[in-house]
Amino acid sequence: MTFDPKKEIKGDPPIKSVTLPQRESKLKQKGTIVWFTGLSGAGKSTLSNLLGKKLFDEDYQVYVLDGDRVRQGLCEDLGFSAEDRRENIRRIGEVAKLFADAAFLVIVAFISPFRKDRDRVRQTVDKDRFIEVFIDCPLDVCAKRDTKGLYKKAMAHEIEDFTGISSPYEPPLSPEIHLRTDAQSVDECVATMIDYLRCAQAVR
Amino acid sequence: MTFDPKKEIKGDPPIKSVTLPQRESKLKQKGTIVWFTGLSGAGKSTLSNLLGKKLFDEDYQVYVLDGDRVRQGLCEDLGFSAEDRRENIRRIGEVAKLFADAAFLVIVAFISPFRKDRDRVRQTVDKDRFIEVFIDCPLDVCAKRDTKGLYKKAMAHEIEDFTGISSPYEPPLSPEIHLRTDAQSVDECVATMIDYLRCAQAVR
Repeated sequence: MTFDPKKEIKGDPPIKSVTLPQRESKLKQKGTIVWFTGLSGAGKSTLSNLLGKKLFDEDYQVYVLDGDRVRQGLCEDLGFSAEDRRENIRRIGEVAKLFADAAFLVIVAFISPFRKDRDRVRQTVDKDRFIEVFIDCPLDVCAKRDTKGLYKKAMAHEIEDFTGISSPYEPPLSPEIHLRTDAQSVDECVATMIDYLRCAQAVR
Repeated sequence: MTFDPKKEIKGDPPIKSVTLPQRESKLKQKGTIVWFTGLSGAGKSTLSNLLGKKLFDEDYQVYVLDGDRVRQGLCEDLGFSAEDRRENIRRIGEVAKLFADAAFLVIVAFISPFRKDRDRVRQTVDKDRFIEVFIDCPLDVCAKRDTKGLYKKAMAHEIEDFTGISSPYEPPLSPEIHLRTDAQSVDECVATMIDYLRCAQAVR
Protein backbone atom coordinates (compact mmCIF):
# COMPACT_ATOMS: atom_id res chain seq x y z
CA MET A 1 0.00 0.00 0.00
CA THR A 2 1.42 3.38 -0.98
CA PHE A 3 0.36 6.87 -0.04
CA ASP A 4 -1.57 7.34 -3.28
CA PRO A 5 -3.59 10.45 -2.44
CA LYS A 6 -6.60 9.38 -4.47
CA LYS A 7 -6.81 5.81 -3.37
CA GLU A 8 -5.48 5.76 0.15
CA ILE A 9 -5.78 9.12 1.80
CA LYS A 10 -8.63 11.06 0.18
CA GLY A 11 -11.78 11.22 2.24
CA ASP A 12 -12.04 9.16 5.38
CA PRO A 13 -8.77 7.51 6.31
CA PRO A 14 -8.90 3.87 5.29
CA ILE A 15 -7.36 2.72 8.53
CA LYS A 16 -9.59 3.17 11.53
CA SER A 17 -8.20 3.38 15.00
CA VAL A 18 -8.78 0.56 17.44
CA THR A 19 -12.25 0.96 18.91
CA LEU A 20 -13.31 0.94 22.55
CA PRO A 21 -15.34 -2.29 22.18
CA GLN A 22 -12.28 -3.99 20.67
CA ARG A 23 -10.15 -2.90 23.61
CA GLU A 24 -12.76 -3.87 26.18
CA SER A 25 -13.22 -7.25 24.63
CA LYS A 26 -9.50 -7.94 24.74
CA LEU A 27 -8.98 -6.62 28.27
CA LYS A 28 -12.19 -8.12 29.65
CA GLN A 29 -13.08 -4.91 31.42
CA LYS A 30 -15.13 -1.80 30.78
CA GLY A 31 -13.59 1.63 30.43
CA THR A 32 -14.86 3.29 33.60
CA ILE A 33 -14.23 6.37 35.69
CA VAL A 34 -14.27 5.68 39.43
CA TRP A 35 -14.51 9.16 40.88
CA PHE A 36 -13.55 9.54 44.55
CA THR A 37 -14.69 12.66 46.37
CA GLY A 38 -14.22 13.57 50.01
CA LEU A 39 -12.44 15.78 52.48
CA SER A 40 -8.69 15.90 52.86
CA GLY A 41 -7.80 13.04 55.20
CA ALA A 42 -10.96 11.06 54.48
CA GLY A 43 -8.92 8.25 52.98
CA LYS A 44 -8.98 8.87 49.23
CA SER A 45 -5.28 8.17 48.63
CA THR A 46 -5.20 5.08 50.80
CA LEU A 47 -8.31 3.61 49.23
CA SER A 48 -7.48 4.56 45.65
CA ASN A 49 -4.03 3.03 45.91
CA LEU A 50 -5.35 -0.11 47.55
CA LEU A 51 -8.18 -0.52 45.06
CA GLY A 52 -5.72 0.11 42.23
CA LYS A 53 -3.29 -2.46 43.61
CA LYS A 54 -5.99 -5.08 44.05
CA LEU A 55 -7.30 -4.64 40.50
CA PHE A 56 -3.75 -4.62 39.12
CA ASP A 57 -3.02 -7.87 40.92
CA GLU A 58 -6.11 -9.33 39.24
CA ASP A 59 -4.60 -8.29 35.88
CA TYR A 60 -6.95 -5.44 35.16
CA GLN A 61 -5.71 -2.24 33.56
CA VAL A 62 -6.11 0.45 36.17
CA TYR A 63 -4.62 3.88 36.79
CA VAL A 64 -4.92 6.24 39.72
CA LEU A 65 -5.17 9.89 38.78
CA ASP A 66 -4.45 12.04 41.81
CA GLY A 67 -2.98 15.34 42.84
CA ASP A 68 0.58 14.07 42.79
CA ARG A 69 0.19 13.19 39.14
CA VAL A 70 -1.40 16.37 37.80
CA ARG A 71 -0.47 19.21 40.12
CA GLN A 72 3.05 19.56 38.72
CA GLY A 73 1.98 18.80 35.19
CA LEU A 74 -1.30 19.28 33.44
CA CYS A 75 -2.68 21.73 35.99
CA GLU A 76 0.49 23.50 37.03
CA ASP A 77 -0.89 26.78 35.68
CA LEU A 78 -3.91 26.65 37.97
CA GLY A 79 -4.35 28.04 41.47
CA PHE A 80 -7.13 27.66 44.00
CA SER A 81 -9.61 30.33 42.95
CA ALA A 82 -13.14 29.11 42.27
CA GLU A 83 -12.53 29.41 38.55
CA ASP A 84 -9.22 27.57 38.68
CA ARG A 85 -10.67 24.77 40.79
CA ARG A 86 -13.45 24.36 38.25
CA GLU A 87 -10.95 24.26 35.37
CA ASN A 88 -8.80 21.82 37.37
CA ILE A 89 -11.68 19.38 37.72
CA ARG A 90 -12.71 19.90 34.11
CA ARG A 91 -9.24 18.93 32.84
CA ILE A 92 -9.01 15.97 35.19
CA GLY A 93 -12.41 14.85 33.95
CA GLU A 94 -11.26 15.11 30.34
CA VAL A 95 -8.11 13.11 31.04
CA ALA A 96 -10.16 10.50 32.89
CA LYS A 97 -12.40 10.23 29.83
CA LEU A 98 -9.36 9.58 27.63
CA PHE A 99 -8.25 6.79 29.95
CA ALA A 100 -11.77 5.34 29.94
CA ASP A 101 -11.70 5.55 26.14
CA ALA A 102 -8.52 3.48 26.32
CA ALA A 103 -10.67 0.94 28.25
CA PHE A 104 -8.93 1.68 31.54
CA LEU A 105 -10.48 1.64 34.95
CA VAL A 106 -9.35 5.08 36.01
CA ILE A 107 -9.60 6.00 39.67
CA VAL A 108 -9.81 9.75 40.14
CA ALA A 109 -8.93 10.81 43.67
CA PHE A 110 -9.40 14.51 44.32
CA ILE A 111 -11.32 16.39 47.00
CA SER A 112 -13.46 17.77 44.13
CA PRO A 113 -15.60 19.71 46.60
CA PHE A 114 -18.20 21.16 44.25
CA ARG A 115 -21.18 19.10 43.16
CA LYS A 116 -21.60 21.06 39.95
CA ASP A 117 -18.05 20.32 38.81
CA ARG A 118 -18.42 16.59 39.47
CA ASP A 119 -21.82 16.48 37.83
CA ARG A 120 -20.46 18.21 34.76
CA VAL A 121 -18.07 15.32 34.24
CA ARG A 122 -20.79 12.77 34.92
CA GLN A 123 -23.08 14.35 32.36
CA THR A 124 -20.56 13.94 29.55
CA VAL A 125 -19.90 10.25 30.18
CA ASP A 126 -22.09 7.23 29.49
CA LYS A 127 -24.19 6.54 32.58
CA ASP A 128 -22.58 3.19 33.37
CA ARG A 129 -19.05 4.51 32.93
CA PHE A 130 -19.09 6.97 35.83
CA ILE A 131 -19.07 5.68 39.38
CA GLU A 132 -19.01 8.33 42.08
CA VAL A 133 -17.56 7.14 45.37
CA PHE A 134 -18.23 9.33 48.38
CA ILE A 135 -15.34 8.85 50.79
CA ASP A 136 -17.27 10.07 53.78
CA CYS A 137 -15.66 10.94 57.07
CA PRO A 138 -16.66 13.60 59.63
CA LEU A 139 -14.60 16.76 59.49
CA ASP A 140 -13.40 16.38 63.08
CA VAL A 141 -12.08 12.90 62.40
CA CYS A 142 -10.27 14.09 59.25
CA ALA A 143 -8.84 17.03 61.19
CA LYS A 144 -7.70 14.69 63.95
CA ARG A 145 -6.03 12.38 61.44
CA ASP A 146 -4.51 15.43 59.68
CA THR A 147 -2.53 13.15 57.36
CA LYS A 148 -0.56 15.93 55.77
CA GLY A 149 -0.63 18.48 58.58
CA LEU A 150 -2.88 20.67 56.48
CA TYR A 151 -5.76 21.10 58.91
CA LYS A 152 -3.43 22.54 61.49
CA LYS A 153 -2.20 25.07 58.98
CA ALA A 154 -5.70 25.83 57.73
CA MET A 155 -6.96 26.44 61.26
CA ALA A 156 -3.99 28.73 61.86
CA HIS A 157 -5.06 30.63 58.70
CA GLU A 158 -1.81 29.65 56.99
CA ILE A 159 -3.77 28.09 54.12
CA GLU A 160 -6.64 29.92 52.45
CA ASP A 161 -9.70 28.31 50.90
CA PHE A 162 -9.16 24.99 52.63
CA THR A 163 -12.07 22.64 52.03
CA GLY A 164 -14.09 22.01 55.17
CA ILE A 165 -12.48 24.88 57.07
CA SER A 166 -12.59 27.99 54.93
CA SER A 167 -14.15 26.65 51.76
CA PRO A 168 -17.31 24.52 51.43
CA TYR A 169 -17.53 20.82 50.69
CA GLU A 170 -20.68 19.71 48.90
CA PRO A 171 -21.28 15.99 49.46
CA PRO A 172 -22.76 13.94 46.61
CA LEU A 173 -26.54 13.61 46.76
CA SER A 174 -26.71 10.13 45.28
CA PRO A 175 -23.27 8.62 44.86
CA GLU A 176 -23.04 5.12 43.41
CA ILE A 177 -20.95 4.10 46.42
CA HIS A 178 -20.97 5.64 49.88
CA LEU A 179 -18.13 4.66 52.20
CA ARG A 180 -17.74 5.80 55.81
CA THR A 181 -14.11 5.61 56.66
CA ASP A 182 -14.66 6.51 60.30
CA ALA A 183 -16.76 3.38 60.74
CA GLN A 184 -15.67 0.88 58.09
CA SER A 185 -12.31 -0.81 57.77
CA VAL A 186 -10.12 -0.31 54.73
CA ASP A 187 -10.78 -3.90 53.68
CA GLU A 188 -14.53 -3.45 53.93
CA CYS A 189 -14.34 -0.32 51.83
CA VAL A 190 -12.30 -2.00 49.11
CA ALA A 191 -14.55 -5.08 49.11
CA THR A 192 -17.61 -2.85 48.68
CA MET A 193 -16.03 -1.18 45.67
CA ILE A 194 -14.91 -4.43 44.06
CA ASP A 195 -18.41 -5.87 44.52
CA TYR A 196 -19.90 -2.82 42.87
CA LEU A 197 -17.48 -2.98 39.94
CA ARG A 198 -18.34 -6.63 39.37
CA CYS A 199 -22.09 -5.99 39.53
CA ALA A 200 -21.67 -3.08 37.12
CA GLN A 201 -19.68 -5.44 34.88
CA ALA A 202 -16.77 -3.03 34.84
CA VAL A 203 -14.67 -6.07 35.74
CA ARG A 204 -15.53 -9.76 35.57
CA MET B 1 -7.13 -2.89 58.97
CA THR B 2 -9.05 0.14 60.17
CA PHE B 3 -8.54 3.80 59.47
CA ASP B 4 -6.66 4.34 62.73
CA PRO B 5 -5.19 7.79 62.16
CA LYS B 6 -2.01 7.07 64.06
CA LYS B 7 -1.21 3.69 62.67
CA GLU B 8 -2.57 3.70 59.15
CA ILE B 9 -2.87 7.18 57.80
CA LYS B 10 -0.40 9.43 59.58
CA GLY B 11 2.64 10.29 57.52
CA ASP B 12 3.22 8.47 54.26
CA PRO B 13 0.26 6.40 53.22
CA PRO B 14 0.97 2.75 54.01
CA ILE B 15 -0.36 1.60 50.66
CA LYS B 16 1.75 2.67 47.72
CA SER B 17 0.34 2.93 44.27
CA VAL B 18 1.37 0.45 41.61
CA THR B 19 4.71 1.54 40.20
CA LEU B 20 5.73 2.01 36.60
CA PRO B 21 8.27 -0.86 36.72
CA GLN B 22 5.56 -3.17 38.07
CA ARG B 23 3.26 -2.21 35.20
CA GLU B 24 5.96 -2.52 32.60
CA SER B 25 7.01 -5.90 33.86
CA LYS B 26 3.47 -7.20 33.66
CA LEU B 27 2.71 -5.71 30.26
CA LYS B 28 6.12 -6.54 28.77
CA GLN B 29 6.44 -3.07 27.26
CA LYS B 30 7.94 0.26 28.18
CA GLY B 31 5.83 3.35 28.78
CA THR B 32 6.80 5.44 25.77
CA ILE B 33 5.63 8.54 23.93
CA VAL B 34 5.78 8.15 20.15
CA TRP B 35 5.40 11.72 18.96
CA PHE B 36 4.37 12.23 15.34
CA THR B 37 4.96 15.63 13.80
CA GLY B 38 4.32 16.73 10.24
CA LEU B 39 2.18 18.80 7.93
CA SER B 40 -1.53 18.30 7.53
CA GLY B 41 -1.94 15.55 4.95
CA ALA B 42 1.51 14.07 5.55
CA GLY B 43 -0.02 10.83 6.80
CA LYS B 44 -0.05 11.18 10.60
CA SER B 45 -3.56 9.81 11.10
CA THR B 46 -3.13 6.93 8.69
CA LEU B 47 0.19 5.89 10.17
CA SER B 48 -0.78 6.40 13.81
CA ASN B 49 -3.93 4.33 13.40
CA LEU B 50 -2.11 1.61 11.52
CA LEU B 51 0.77 1.47 14.01
CA GLY B 52 -1.74 1.46 16.85
CA LYS B 53 -3.72 -1.36 15.26
CA LYS B 54 -0.60 -3.44 14.64
CA LEU B 55 0.63 -3.07 18.21
CA PHE B 56 -2.86 -3.76 19.56
CA ASP B 57 -3.04 -6.95 17.50
CA GLU B 58 0.25 -7.99 19.09
CA ASP B 59 -1.38 -7.48 22.50
CA TYR B 60 0.48 -4.33 23.46
CA GLN B 61 -1.29 -1.52 25.31
CA VAL B 62 -1.37 1.38 22.92
CA TYR B 63 -3.43 4.54 22.56
CA VAL B 64 -3.54 7.15 19.84
CA LEU B 65 -3.92 10.70 21.06
CA ASP B 66 -5.02 12.93 18.19
CA GLY B 67 -7.04 16.02 17.40
CA ASP B 68 -10.33 14.17 17.33
CA ARG B 69 -9.76 13.06 20.90
CA VAL B 70 -8.74 16.35 22.51
CA ARG B 71 -10.18 19.16 20.43
CA GLN B 72 -13.70 18.80 21.83
CA GLY B 73 -12.46 17.94 25.29
CA LEU B 74 -9.28 18.83 27.10
CA CYS B 75 -8.37 21.69 24.77
CA GLU B 76 -11.81 22.95 23.85
CA ASP B 77 -11.02 26.30 25.47
CA LEU B 78 -8.02 26.90 23.20
CA GLY B 79 -7.86 28.60 19.81
CA PHE B 80 -5.07 28.92 17.28
CA SER B 81 -3.05 31.87 18.57
CA ALA B 82 0.63 31.22 19.17
CA GLU B 83 0.01 31.09 22.92
CA ASP B 84 -2.95 28.75 22.61
CA ARG B 85 -1.04 26.44 20.28
CA ARG B 86 1.77 26.27 22.79
CA GLU B 87 -0.65 25.52 25.63
CA ASN B 88 -2.37 22.93 23.44
CA ILE B 89 0.88 21.04 22.91
CA ARG B 90 1.83 21.44 26.57
CA ARG B 91 -1.39 19.80 27.74
CA ILE B 92 -1.15 17.04 25.14
CA GLY B 93 2.40 16.41 26.32
CA GLU B 94 1.25 16.18 29.93
CA VAL B 95 -1.52 13.75 29.04
CA ALA B 96 0.94 11.68 27.01
CA LYS B 97 3.20 11.55 30.07
CA LEU B 98 0.33 10.22 32.18
CA PHE B 99 -0.30 7.47 29.63
CA ALA B 100 3.41 6.65 29.55
CA ASP B 101 3.33 6.54 33.36
CA ALA B 102 0.55 3.97 33.00
CA ALA B 103 3.09 2.01 30.88
CA PHE B 104 1.23 2.71 27.65
CA LEU B 105 2.76 3.19 24.25
CA VAL B 106 1.04 6.47 23.47
CA ILE B 107 1.12 7.70 19.89
CA VAL B 108 0.68 11.45 19.74
CA ALA B 109 -0.39 12.63 16.28
CA PHE B 110 -0.55 16.39 15.93
CA ILE B 111 1.00 18.77 13.43
CA SER B 112 2.89 20.25 16.42
CA PRO B 113 4.66 22.74 14.13
CA PHE B 114 6.98 24.41 16.62
CA ARG B 115 10.28 22.82 17.56
CA LYS B 116 10.36 24.55 20.92
CA ASP B 117 7.00 23.13 21.96
CA ARG B 118 7.98 19.58 21.00
CA ASP B 119 11.36 19.92 22.66
CA ARG B 120 9.75 21.15 25.85
CA VAL B 121 7.89 17.86 26.12
CA ARG B 122 11.01 15.88 25.26
CA GLN B 123 13.00 17.62 27.97
CA THR B 124 10.60 16.55 30.70
CA VAL B 125 10.58 12.87 29.77
CA ASP B 126 13.27 10.21 30.26
CA LYS B 127 15.43 10.13 27.14
CA ASP B 128 14.41 6.64 26.07
CA ARG B 129 10.72 7.30 26.57
CA PHE B 130 10.31 9.96 23.89
CA ILE B 131 10.51 8.96 20.24
CA GLU B 132 9.97 11.76 17.77
CA VAL B 133 8.73 10.62 14.38
CA PHE B 134 9.00 13.12 11.56
CA ILE B 135 6.22 12.35 9.08
CA ASP B 136 7.91 14.11 6.22
CA CYS B 137 6.15 14.95 2.99
CA PRO B 138 6.66 17.96 0.67
CA LEU B 139 4.09 20.68 1.05
CA ASP B 140 2.94 20.40 -2.58
CA VAL B 141 2.25 16.69 -2.17
CA CYS B 142 0.30 17.31 1.04
CA ALA B 143 -1.63 20.11 -0.66
CA LYS B 144 -2.40 17.85 -3.61
CA ARG B 145 -3.62 15.09 -1.30
CA ASP B 146 -5.63 17.69 0.65
CA THR B 147 -7.18 14.91 2.75
CA LYS B 148 -9.58 17.19 4.56
CA GLY B 149 -9.95 19.95 1.95
CA LEU B 150 -8.10 22.31 4.28
CA TYR B 151 -5.34 23.41 1.89
CA LYS B 152 -7.91 24.64 -0.60
CA LYS B 153 -9.53 26.71 2.13
CA ALA B 154 -6.20 27.95 3.45
CA MET B 155 -5.08 29.06 0.00
CA ALA B 156 -8.40 30.84 -0.45
CA HIS B 157 -7.65 32.63 2.86
CA GLU B 158 -10.69 30.99 4.46
CA ILE B 159 -8.48 29.57 7.22
CA GLU B 160 -5.96 31.72 9.04
CA ASP B 161 -2.66 30.52 10.48
CA PHE B 162 -2.63 27.31 8.48
CA THR B 163 0.64 25.45 8.91
CA GLY B 164 2.73 25.43 5.76
CA ILE B 165 0.64 28.12 4.08
CA SER B 166 0.23 31.02 6.46
CA SER B 167 2.02 29.70 9.54
CA PRO B 168 5.48 28.13 9.71
CA TYR B 169 6.34 24.48 10.15
CA GLU B 170 9.63 23.76 11.89
CA PRO B 171 10.86 20.26 11.04
CA PRO B 172 12.68 18.28 13.73
CA LEU B 173 16.47 18.62 13.59
CA SER B 174 17.24 15.11 14.78
CA PRO B 175 14.12 12.99 15.05
CA GLU B 176 14.48 9.42 16.22
CA ILE B 177 12.59 8.28 13.12
CA HIS B 178 12.31 10.08 9.79
CA LEU B 179 9.67 8.81 7.37
CA ARG B 180 9.07 10.15 3.87
CA THR B 181 5.52 9.41 2.96
CA ASP B 182 5.89 10.69 -0.60
CA ALA B 183 8.49 7.99 -1.26
CA GLN B 184 7.85 5.15 1.18
CA SER B 185 4.82 2.90 1.34
CA VAL B 186 2.60 2.78 4.39
CA ASP B 187 3.85 -0.71 5.15
CA GLU B 188 7.48 0.39 4.97
CA CYS B 189 6.78 3.26 7.33
CA VAL B 190 5.06 1.04 9.87
CA ALA B 191 7.81 -1.59 9.65
CA THR B 192 10.45 1.08 10.29
CA MET B 193 8.64 2.21 13.41
CA ILE B 194 8.08 -1.30 14.73
CA ASP B 195 11.77 -2.09 14.20
CA TYR B 196 12.75 1.02 16.10
CA LEU B 197 10.39 0.22 18.98
CA ARG B 198 11.87 -3.26 19.27
CA CYS B 199 15.45 -1.98 19.19
CA ALA B 200 14.56 0.62 21.82
CA GLN B 201 13.01 -2.23 23.84
CA ALA B 202 9.74 -0.35 24.05
CA VAL B 203 8.18 -3.61 22.89
CA ARG B 204 9.63 -7.10 22.77
